[in-house]
Amino acid sequence: MTLKFYDLCGAQSELRFSPFCWLARLALAHKGLKYETTLLRFTEKQNYPDPDYGKLPILVDGDKVVTDSWSIVCYLEATYPERPLAHSSGEWAAAEFFRTWTGAVLFPPLVPFMMKRVHAILDKRDQDYFRDTREKRFGANLESLDQKTMSGKESMEAGLATLMAPLGAHDFLGGAVPNISDYIVFSPLQWQRCVTSETFYDTPAPVVSWMDRMLEVNDGVAGRAMCAGDL
Amino acid sequence: MTLKFYDLCGAQSELRFSPFCWLARLALAHKGLKYETTLLRFTEKQNYPDPDYGKLPILVDGDKVVTDSWSIVCYLEATYPERPLAHSSGEWAAAEFFRTWTGAVLFPPLVPFMMKRVHAILDKRDQDYFRDTREKRFGANLESLDQKTMSGKESMEAGLATLMAPLGAHDFLGGAVPNISDYIVFSPLQWQRCVTSETFYDTPAPVVSWMDRMLEVNDGVAGRAMCAGDL
Repeated sequence: MTLKFYDLCGAQSELRFSPFCWLARLALAHKGLKYETTLLRFTEKQNYPDPDYGKLPILVDGDKVVTDSWSIVCYLEATYPERPLAHSSGEWAAAEFFRTWTGAVLFPPLVPFMMKRVHAILDKRDQDYFRDTREKRFGANLESLDQKTMSGKESMEAGLATLMAPLGAHDFLGGAVPNISDYIVFSPLQWQRCVTSETFYDTPAPVVSWMDRMLEVNDGVAGRAMCAGDL
Repeated sequence: MTLKFYDLCGAQSELRFSPFCWLARLALAHKGLKYETTLLRFTEKQNYPDPDYGKLPILVDGDKVVTDSWSIVCYLEATYPERPLAHSSGEWAAAEFFRTWTGAVLFPPLVPFMMKRVHAILDKRDQDYFRDTREKRFGANLESLDQKTMSGKESMEAGLATLMAPLGAHDFLGGAVPNISDYIVFSPLQWQRCVTSETFYDTPAPVVSWMDRMLEVNDGVAGRAMCAGDL
């Protein structure tokens, strides 16, 4: 039975940027699982395995349809325990912390900066959908969100500074090898990397070095990804 | 050879409150090591094993004098590897993160609230020393620091909120058993608990339950501690 992974893509179908899809994809890569990928856009929900849910990533394993990136991570770990995504209950507890921390500390400053830039890489129909849904969600147009970018510089840098000690003392948040915490924290940064070569904050040297390592692990799946900034 | 531990105390010698001393003491308790305790005050530096260093905790192991709480943790782990303080390099990497995070997120809102209250539990000579050194360090008197307490309520609660997911899903940050990350995060909260029964923030239910568990582990060393608020 072949695993099927449904991933979000930009105007160019090989431009895969969603941080949530990246988290699931990195977990699949970590486990070395073979799977078929289907690339879909925001406005192709009728072709999603769960059109009512209407979000990606989705993993289909036989008759099991798993939505939500964290549910996919947990499903993979429970179903395919080889090459574990963490090596102890303490590492899983830390991963739960990093999930909340990434959502509370890294995403909020990134989002205003990213919205206009994500819009720019989508195809025309997706652009209309994205602008409409995001401007409703944030109560502001994408351009005015972008103007707020610099107000997040300090909090983004404070967040990344918290990573300097662990990533200075260890190769990964997983210690000697990457674990699920690395993928959690890396996903929003890979989102940015795939969408734009621009940035608005300074990244501490130990975090830059860790990013380089993250691009190489699992046969370089993250490093080989198409990046809009390189096109 | 008997391990010797030098701990800071208040006006009452059994009132031991320093968060840094608690971190070292909890590491000693976790390892089940036997040791002799010497209780000293701020103004008894001439009796510290390293008077020039002038800070506590200090651990003396034969002719080895270990200063600084984190150095004590690392020394204990290297020298007495049984009952490890973490179970994988990933747990140690997470601990490095929690050290920085605790310093950046929990201590800053706690400090203004704590200074006047720590002062209140010290003996007269220590009170003069503490007021002098802390007012110089913070460029403000203890009473005006106290008036800033409520400005830290939101950031303290945001910090504690990050702990809800891991401590809701696991008994400890160490997973099924406490590890060094638990002791790191718990120490400033135990500092507060030993010094005062007052608070200025709301603690989420999973964190309250975790605190209760932390008071019980290692033969209840934290739970049995003298608290100024109970006197």
